[in-house]
Amino acid sequence: MPNSLKLGLAGLGTVGAGVLRLLDAHAGQIAARAGRPVQVVAVSARDRSKKRDAVIDNYRWVDDPIALAQDPEIDAFVELMGGEEGIPKESVEAALKAGKHVVTANKALLAHHGVALAKLAEENDVALNFEAAVAGGIPIVKVMRESLQGNAISRVYGILNGTCNYILTLMQEEGATFDDALKEAQEKGYAEADPTFDIGGFDTAHKLALLTSLAFGVETAFEDIYVEGIQRIAAADIEAADRLGYRLKLLGVAAATEHGIEQRVHPAMVAKHTPVAETFGAQNCVLIDGDFVEDVMLSGQGAGAGPTASAVMGDIIELARGHIFAPFATKTADLKPYPKAEMGGHAGSYYLRLTVRDQTGVIAGIATRMAEQDISLESIVQHRQRTDIPGVDEDEVHTGPVDVVMITHERPKRRSKKRSRPSRVTDML
Amino acid sequence: MPNSLKLGLAGLGTVGAGVLRLLDAHAGQIAARAGRPVQVVAVSARDRSKKRDAVIDNYRWVDDPIALAQDPEIDAFVELMGGEEGIPKESVEAALKAGKHVVTANKALLAHHGVALAKLAEENDVALNFEAAVAGGIPIVKVMRESLQGNAISRVYGILNGTCNYILTLMQEEGATFDDALKEAQEKGYAEADPTFDIGGFDTAHKLALLTSLAFGVETAFEDIYVEGIQRIAAADIEAADRLGYRLKLLGVAAATEHGIEQRVHPAMVAKHTPVAETFGAQNCVLIDGDFVEDVMLSGQGAGAGPTASAVMGDIIELARGHIFAPFATKTADLKPYPKAEMGGHAGSYYLRLTVRDQTGVIAGIATRMAEQDISLESIVQHRQRTDIPGVDEDEVHTGPVDVVMITHERPKRRSKKRSRPSRVTDML
Repeated sequence: MPNSLKLGLAGLGTVGAGVLRLLDAHAGQIAARAGRPVQVVAVSARDRSKKRDAVIDNYRWVDDPIALAQDPEIDAFVELMGGEEGIPKESVEAALKAGKHVVTANKALLAHHGVALAKLAEENDVALNFEAAVAGGIPIVKVMRESLQGNAISRVYGILNGTCNYILTLMQEEGATFDDALKEAQEKGYAEADPTFDIGGFDTAHKLALLTSLAFGVETAFEDIYVEGIQRIAAADIEAADRLGYRLKLLGVAAATEHGIEQRVHPAMVAKHTPVAETFGAQNCVLIDGDFVEDVMLSGQGAGAGPTASAVMGDIIELARGHIFAPFATKTADLKPYPKAEMGGHAGSYYLRLTVRDQTGVIAGIATRMAEQDISLESIVQHRQRTDIPGVDEDEVHTGPVDVVMITHERPKRRSKKRSRPSRVTDML
Repeated sequence: MPNSLKLGLAGLGTVGAGVLRLLDAHAGQIAARAGRPVQVVAVSARDRSKKRDAVIDNYRWVDDPIALAQDPEIDAFVELMGGEEGIPKESVEAALKAGKHVVTANKALLAHHGVALAKLAEENDVALNFEAAVAGGIPIVKVMRESLQGNAISRVYGILNGTCNYILTLMQEEGATFDDALKEAQEKGYAEADPTFDIGGFDTAHKLALLTSLAFGVETAFEDIYVEGIQRIAAADIEAADRLGYRLKLLGVAAATEHGIEQRVHPAMVAKHTPVAETFGAQNCVLIDGDFVEDVMLSGQGAGAGPTASAVMGDIIELARGHIFAPFATKTADLKPYPKAEMGGHAGSYYLRLTVRDQTGVIAGIATRMAEQDISLESIVQHRQRTDIPGVDEDEVHTGPVDVVMITHERPKRRSKKRSRPSRVTDML
């Protein structure tokens, strides 16, 4: 049996502990399938004595992750600390410079510094594997970097954040308000105490930046992603979507257009009974359109100890097998600059909900204003609000507030006058 | 730029022509991503002058595929002829023995001789890649052989034959009879003139044999698969399924049980609004349950020139990159013998439809007989047949034939007496 692949693991939170448990459970199988044993030789984390879901007594402890990254005994550095700057970044750089392979689940780090780190990996002839950074257990990075390389990809999109999808699922299934759903997600451990990162769409955007690079062979461009979160989605929107035959989902979309590549993260109406609409709870899904493969979809658990550990281990096994892939599928010198398509040029069908007094002429007034702005409507429907309105008796609401829901035509005509953007705009996929 | 990867391609039907078109369309991209150019240098097929969807004038013509397989100029042999014995088998063997890598889409060949061929590849230190043999454009082989290697897989299943799914979709959406749906599938090119192979479930079984080996690390065991096709499904079954909240799908299922591994191909009731039930037309889907990854699903086009060519090219690019994978993920010596679980021991919920005279006491009689055989019923429903019955007036059908539909409980009690198997048994997933 050849020498084992020796790992240094930094970060012993949920995912780190999951990786240790996985190795404990399947060491024999992994050795057989990788062609050599895989073993963790040293670990590092913020607090050695913290209670964990894995036993760490058998591993050498290293206080400083940056020291661990360059440890002479290790072949590969597994970075599971997370965070875009500081020690995670410095330790990954140190590992690559020391000629160690790196396996990481750190999407924030890669979305911001992925290409520079890939260049460093290239120069030192080592791997930088990041399957676990996108969509948890779903093997989308490998599929895009390897399986679909013969295609020209025109679009990649999907549900990339389990927290948001969990909240939207609760709102849909239980009629919960956004605040209540968020609270339940936090109680169940799906959402952080500070949930901005997830519900604001930024986590989805990090993952999208990586998928965009893999799909189109371009440099990552996180800063150029249009990002809109789910914070302003009301129960009334979920209801209106349902009545119109849609589900509301937070999507990340990267698409080739005639003006460049469009990258956007926003809530979208997705037709019911489609696989994306049927992706519930903390599940993720990713869909790819390629010129030869046509359409491919992958779905599964987008987060959690087990699924993420499965992704990390897939990357580690490839290292043990001696397969080194270019992190972004091609040499960094061959990555093209990101050709940004402005969101202003995005053609799509929009959903708008206005809360108005139920008076004669209101709909006519709205329709007239829309026409003046050259916005063509596909439908306009008035719904009585089902939420309780203080001071308004259920039987006397005909002069109270009502929701007017509109769907615009897919391709808005070019407007010559200044553009007045509606305050609540939700794109249809 | 390093030397190009030189291919000999045998078989210029739909898929072969697709591969040539793909290479024509994306030669530059492939060279950049593979790190070296990929080129076809010689081709072979039954008839040189046949009209094709690709130009073959630029390639050297070789009459004999076995000669092409050993051609000194080629690095890899791409076998797209199909068929389990004869020239396809001999040419693949010749290529491997001559130290050429092999890329093939031939599921029949691999289901019967995969392990022996993998051993030959191993001995000659070359690759035997077969992504295109299972589920067309869906990269399921790579995902199982690489991404999910850290998991203990408990089940892999899915819709693996586009022809059957196309027929079942037509029956469901248009109320077509099986014969009419098959005819339409043949007219549209989805089904062969002799459709036995597809509708009898054998094509699904070939693919399942490969997935079983990859999932469980066992030798392929095509002969041990329980196979039931879709030929006897009537419009009334599709209707009954719909009323009960299900869709009828032809599934291939491989699952670990306490008695061994169960491999079965048969029509199954799949609950509506699940991803499998929402897989329509010629689409395929594959689902995997692993202990760490939990559940993963892949779906996409299960056949056709473009998707299959995409899969073939993914395999070729890995060769150009210098990555050689063990065909069945591990050394053939490490593959365990297939531990067969008998179908008789399969515990599941069964669907039965009996056509009976509509007379008092019929249902009671059936229920009594079922109880005598110790079969516990979850539900028993009588439906008036909607198909026209010659000689029976619509208004006088209460003594005519009616359908009695039954669902048995999931775990049938152990029967001590001899087992009388109902003639139409369709498993629920």
